[in-house]
Amino acid sequence: MKNVYVAGVGMTNFGKSERLGRELALEAAISAIEDAGIEPKDIDATYVSSAFGIGENQVHVGPLINSALGIPDRPSLTIESACSGSSAAFHEAYVALSSGFYNIALVVGYEKLTMNSTPENTRLFAMASDFWYEGLNGVTFPGLYALMATAHMNKYGTSEEMLGSIAIKNHRNGFYNPKAHFRKIIDMDTYLKSPVVAYPLKLYDSCPFSDGAAAIILINEDAKIKKSELVKVLASVRSGSMAALQDRNDYTGIPGAKIASEKAYKYSKTSPEMISFAEVHDCFTIAEVMAMEDIGFFKKGDGGKASLEGITQFDGKKPVNPSGGLKAKGHPVSATGIAQIVEIYDQMLFRVDKNRQVSNPEIGLTHNVGATGGSVTINIFRRLK
Amino acid sequence: MKNVYVAGVGMTNFGKSERLGRELALEAAISAIEDAGIEPKDIDATYVSSAFGIGENQVHVGPLINSALGIPDRPSLTIESACSGSSAAFHEAYVALSSGFYNIALVVGYEKLTMNSTPENTRLFAMASDFWYEGLNGVTFPGLYALMATAHMNKYGTSEEMLGSIAIKNHRNGFYNPKAHFRKIIDMDTYLKSPVVAYPLKLYDSCPFSDGAAAIILINEDAKIKKSELVKVLASVRSGSMAALQDRNDYTGIPGAKIASEKAYKYSKTSPEMISFAEVHDCFTIAEVMAMEDIGFFKKGDGGKASLEGITQFDGKKPVNPSGGLKAKGHPVSATGIAQIVEIYDQMLFRVDKNRQVSNPEIGLTHNVGATGGSVTINIFRRLK
Repeated sequence: MKNVYVAGVGMTNFGKSERLGRELALEAAISAIEDAGIEPKDIDATYVSSAFGIGENQVHVGPLINSALGIPDRPSLTIESACSGSSAAFHEAYVALSSGFYNIALVVGYEKLTMNSTPENTRLFAMASDFWYEGLNGVTFPGLYALMATAHMNKYGTSEEMLGSIAIKNHRNGFYNPKAHFRKIIDMDTYLKSPVVAYPLKLYDSCPFSDGAAAIILINEDAKIKKSELVKVLASVRSGSMAALQDRNDYTGIPGAKIASEKAYKYSKTSPEMISFAEVHDCFTIAEVMAMEDIGFFKKGDGGKASLEGITQFDGKKPVNPSGGLKAKGHPVSATGIAQIVEIYDQMLFRVDKNRQVSNPEIGLTHNVGATGGSVTINIFRRLK
Repeated sequence: MKNVYVAGVGMTNFGKSERLGRELALEAAISAIEDAGIEPKDIDATYVSSAFGIGENQVHVGPLINSALGIPDRPSLTIESACSGSSAAFHEAYVALSSGFYNIALVVGYEKLTMNSTPENTRLFAMASDFWYEGLNGVTFPGLYALMATAHMNKYGTSEEMLGSIAIKNHRNGFYNPKAHFRKIIDMDTYLKSPVVAYPLKLYDSCPFSDGAAAIILINEDAKIKKSELVKVLASVRSGSMAALQDRNDYTGIPGAKIASEKAYKYSKTSPEMISFAEVHDCFTIAEVMAMEDIGFFKKGDGGKASLEGITQFDGKKPVNPSGGLKAKGHPVSATGIAQIVEIYDQMLFRVDKNRQVSNPEIGLTHNVGATGGSVTINIFRRLK
């Protein structure tokens, strides 16, 4: 298999945008192309991810992006895998590049959501659950993650303060990320007093509905490009879990995340101890707790405690979500997986704000979950000296 | 690269169904698994295609299929590429198997459409065009293909009777396909007198909105399975064209189909002359004319004439759409690409009705178009002796 590298990244501001999803996608794509120092004509294939394009009356966006870039003959497709769509798109590009089908790929994830009301977006998101058993019966994602949170609290003594420490950390990191949806530092009192969405999850446990796009240029070792600042992909592994929560024996973790991360460590010859920092899927604070445990950063049940102790701060022993995570950076569904990789790349090139720059970003991991874990992607990256 | 084979196929009836899309997808998947003589646990990854799942409040269907099959830990994703979604899913599985990432893949395409009115489905489909320039201004797909038809008529003298001969042939073949949406033989008079949809395209030039699902089991040479009736994949190539018709210089063909088929012939060391039969994307009769020309079966402008002469009948020199095509078999959008491969496989195993069985099905080609050619997939298959 050929070596595969991230050669450039691009990202729009996350938050509320008046522009069309396709325009956001194109903005991110052009940024990534410029960052990689290539021309659009160098791109062999385009992988797009979007989940709710129908809300804007526009699906089949790949050909629109390629047409606008002046490369209409290049293949494109759109991938949806709930909140992990662009990680799945990344994986598809990785497979094609590592096997030599293509040498240079553009991967773009985008979503446009803020034109909808919160109830409407909550309804749309519920379509990614096992709708006829969960969403239809009123259990939307805040409810599903609330079930996981109470299970985790009951079994491991995870407290609201522990969850709060995650929200506070991620809001702090987002404050120093100019592209983050929320740039507002919060304290524990604000967190604890915020309105309950689905007990025990409060407003400040929950990520927002955001507009935004993120893109990367992925290359293999045969690609002829000038740029030398590359980040190597050590592993990209996808897995899944029983789609409906009701069909699982345990709610305190996500089985697919454990399976995928174990495989990713094996393939990349790394271990949780060797990972310098991670971007994980904190759609709700409890999700960050489960993520850190599932990927082996902390023993099962210790994730909340580790957070409260500050271990996962950007300057702690195990930085998690230095970007601000979904919580503060925002969560434009199908942009999120690529946005995590944008952060890995920017951290490894030491080009983020010093107030969230990880000191030794040698090996980075991304953890991206679709729904309650029906699909999961784990990627591991290494900085090149 | 490893050799890749189709090892089993499954398909629901196409037409109107009272069942959910996910149930149709599962029915087709189970048929394909049984046909291949494997167990669900043998599947390494599941590739799903669906375009309009939001109409049923259900996206992220891969995990539902895998959960129902008892393999929740296997990766899955959903691919949309307008009307060529499941061909794109097939291509992704082909890339992963030929490079050895996985050994056995399930590829499923499905769509559920008949619960919507014709105007509503026409509106939904228009989302796959360059919506803000085409659909929004009232040019839906019948209109776009009508522009292509009049251009072809003007430039090459293609007549309504020539288009009619395609509709008549495909309705005849569909009559002998027990899973076809329409099983009704029509004559030229019926065709000519049918109501105009968008001049020159009439009702009988147009494929229907159908419900349905199709699935295949794809394996590589390392897969350990008992079944010996395999069909080899010689090539799978994807390409594209300018998304909006207004941005093209010529409307009489689909540029991406020409590019992809030329590459597919090259990779498979075949030629148009060597292809025994083809399943092509006849969303409208004019699309079959352009397809036959773009893939090099006939000289540019001769497609309609060749059809009127009977060359493309199932027992003609160059059989095209022996399944009945989209026109008569039906067009459940994201099921269509895989349904074409189902027909290739069944023809090569000599297990279709004798009234549409191609006599010498040695090398088969599938041609699947998304929208007006923004994305195109060409696959070439060989029967093993």
